Amino acid sequence: MRQKTVVVGAGPVGALAALYAAQRGHDVEIYELRSDLRDPSTTPLMFSRSINLALSERGIHAMRSSGKQDLLQKVTSETIPMRGRMIHGKSPSGQFTELAQDYDILGRSLYAADRGGLNKTLLDELESMPNVKFFFNHKLTGADFKHHKAWFEISHTVSLKESTGTRAREVEIDFDLMIGADGAHSAARYHLMKYARLDYQQTYIDTLWCEFTIEPKAVQTGQEPSSRFAISPNYLHIWPGKDFMFIAIPSLDGSFTCTLFLPSSHLLSLENDPSSIPSFFDTHFPGVTSLIPPSTLTASFTSNPHLPLISIKCQPYHYADAVVIIGDAAHAMVPFYGQGMNAGLEDVRVLFEVLDSHASAAPLTPESRAKALACYSHLRTPDAHAINDLALENYTEMRASVISPLYKARKWLEETISVWFPSFGWQTKYSRAG
Amino acid sequence: MRQKTVVVGAGPVGALAALYAAQRGHDVEIYELRSDLRDPSTTPLMFSRSINLALSERGIHAMRSSGKQDLLQKVTSETIPMRGRMIHGKSPSGQFTELAQDYDILGRSLYAADRGGLNKTLLDELESMPNVKFFFNHKLTGADFKHHKAWFEISHTVSLKESTGTRAREVEIDFDLMIGADGAHSAARYHLMKYARLDYQQTYIDTLWCEFTIEPKAVQTGQEPSSRFAISPNYLHIWPGKDFMFIAIPSLDGSFTCTLFLPSSHLLSLENDPSSIPSFFDTHFPGVTSLIPPSTLTASFTSNPHLPLISIKCQPYHYADAVVIIGDAAHAMVPFYGQGMNAGLEDVRVLFEVLDSHASAAPLTPESRAKALACYSHLRTPDAHAINDLALENYTEMRASVISPLYKARKWLEETISVWFPSFGWQTKYSRAG
Repeated sequence: MRQKTVVVGAGPVGALAALYAAQRGHDVEIYELRSDLRDPSTTPLMFSRSINLALSERGIHAMRSSGKQDLLQKVTSETIPMRGRMIHGKSPSGQFTELAQDYDILGRSLYAADRGGLNKTLLDELESMPNVKFFFNHKLTGADFKHHKAWFEISHTVSLKESTGTRAREVEIDFDLMIGADGAHSAARYHLMKYARLDYQQTYIDTLWCEFTIEPKAVQTGQEPSSRFAISPNYLHIWPGKDFMFIAIPSLDGSFTCTLFLPSSHLLSLENDPSSIPSFFDTHFPGVTSLIPPSTLTASFTSNPHLPLISIKCQPYHYADAVVIIGDAAHAMVPFYGQGMNAGLEDVRVLFEVLDSHASAAPLTPESRAKALACYSHLRTPDAHAINDLALENYTEMRASVISPLYKARKWLEETISVWFPSFGWQTKYSRAG
Repeated sequence: MRQKTVVVGAGPVGALAALYAAQRGHDVEIYELRSDLRDPSTTPLMFSRSINLALSERGIHAMRSSGKQDLLQKVTSETIPMRGRMIHGKSPSGQFTELAQDYDILGRSLYAADRGGLNKTLLDELESMPNVKFFFNHKLTGADFKHHKAWFEISHTVSLKESTGTRAREVEIDFDLMIGADGAHSAARYHLMKYARLDYQQTYIDTLWCEFTIEPKAVQTGQEPSSRFAISPNYLHIWPGKDFMFIAIPSLDGSFTCTLFLPSSHLLSLENDPSSIPSFFDTHFPGVTSLIPPSTLTASFTSNPHLPLISIKCQPYHYADAVVIIGDAAHAMVPFYGQGMNAGLEDVRVLFEVLDSHASAAPLTPESRAKALACYSHLRTPDAHAINDLALENYTEMRASVISPLYKARKWLEETISVWFPSFGWQTKYSRAG
């Protein structure tokens, strides 16, 4: 009998896990709380996540190792390579400055990816496989990990139940292995915690984030398409601040998705006086008001959600042979290394490497799967904790430091890069005076 | 309109909270996952909790302040006052020793209470109030704390769902305030965490516990009923060990409920060689094999569950005006101070004191209730964290210390007593030589 692997969560990490399992011939079922994001009737969802993300070597390696020949090519074709970071600042004489810093002397890049697009590519890949079934609008409500059973409630709206006394439709399923990839507020982890003795810690940092957009420029006939970008598309743009930060990541349509990170007290004072937002930006993020009109800046700040940042550590990640959690469900981290989703994709690669190494010629027995999952928890916990700590420490240092923004930015980059890539080079230039 | 207060969890802490709310004229609804423990058809449940517990001044004060004149009398009539602790050991010459230590020069006692009996007394008290409704077999499955709604699944068995494709019956309710008193694995807290930015930490310590019983002695005609007790009923009996501990708490029927605390590695070695259990007891817990026959000791160890100990800290305890968690849901602690349930009962008293102080002449408005809950979180968190830390530190010290068991026991008692009572006295005597 083939192994039945149930994946909870159809985000990028869950979808990649399903792909790895399907490539190994498992009967794969994917259960997702939300509706199919590829369905045109699906209302665009607020995922409480950044729209754009930076795909790094960790994530790329995990997709390269999926066994799907063209997956990486499909994914990267929809991304924009970022050869480094561009640090924005202001010279003593008041001119806007840019300090470009390339990531890698070998020319390896980060890739600016659209989260939704990456997710769709992975789901499309799965759709073509006969041993994969999708179950959208399914909410995990219970699990018995001793008997390999789980219960899902079926809904046809994403919103909360509307009427009194509704009877929710519930299904019971069984499985050999459940992979919980359902995010920071994971239901799989919640049920795992009833079986495994999880040490678990979650912390909200005192920083919120809010999204902005730098719109594409109008392109005139005969101009290069790349001239749509208001600033260089091949960099992750950073405006460092003492207590806060503004970043911009390019999108294929010529826009940039921007994120403001701000301590809650600063945020509150801006909320109380939105008219001060443009001057706040002018003081701390030089040049941004020439990329986003002040009125748009204020409108975005007022209408877009101000979202929290959570850091999660736990261990172990599994129970017996029945369940393992990966991605944000296992180790949600603050975004100051940009490694959250990449670490989740890497979980998938490491998990299946460990499972493969415990399978002899035959498929895994429950006993050998239990050993493999214990090995995975053992192997993966210190790595995940380390990167989680680095992200938090970096945040703390950014907040606590009183030295110059430029120095801090450089230090931050040095540390960041040493995590992102083992080797890297510096290339410094000043361009684009305001 | 009267305030509707929904209490999740009908254990002692939830029941007392319901009583406080009902005394204030709220419409009270109590939702409990399990069936009514007073129902004779209810199968005795494994609560994964000790049957007996020590009621201390914290808990007693909370019941005294309930506004129910005779509640405390009803509760204490079913308890056994313990004037102190009895430390069991062995003299250098090999004689069994007992060191009695009274808690309080004022004569205040701890009370050995049956958890089920205490719970029943509180539920009976509630049953007589017209503004209280019970909903047993109701499992909290969802909550919308912005709109004051919650969903419960109704089951008629405690066990997991049996059949495929069952439709669970679900009800929607609304409320002004939800009080989550549903224990260490609280569903109320799980849903609260989707709304409030909870810092949350749980840790399992490397010690498990297992329950034993010292049976009553046969009473002959003309003998005092108290002669049923094999050892003095008016003490909490302790056999301290370097890495472990054995305690005995009296029950009204003349028996003692005993608990063995043991690191998992020790436990495993005993599990692997159950025949070594009596000699293990003889070495570490002198005299116990004369109170529990060796065969019974071995049988109890083998058949009774070996249960984990969890320590939980979080903050805040509330969200807006809608929900607050109390008891183990907010601060489950290791039992080395015996204050877990007492702190939970104290939560109820403090919570309603704070709510009362925020109500002017009129009932609480949502705004003033939100302020009161914020005040409660602020006030209660440091106290709960402190007692939680003390319990954990004490466990760590017990484990790490290499000094004599008697010294450690004394130190442990000193610290414990300073928590339990502000003033205390020592009374030392040696009695009952083996």
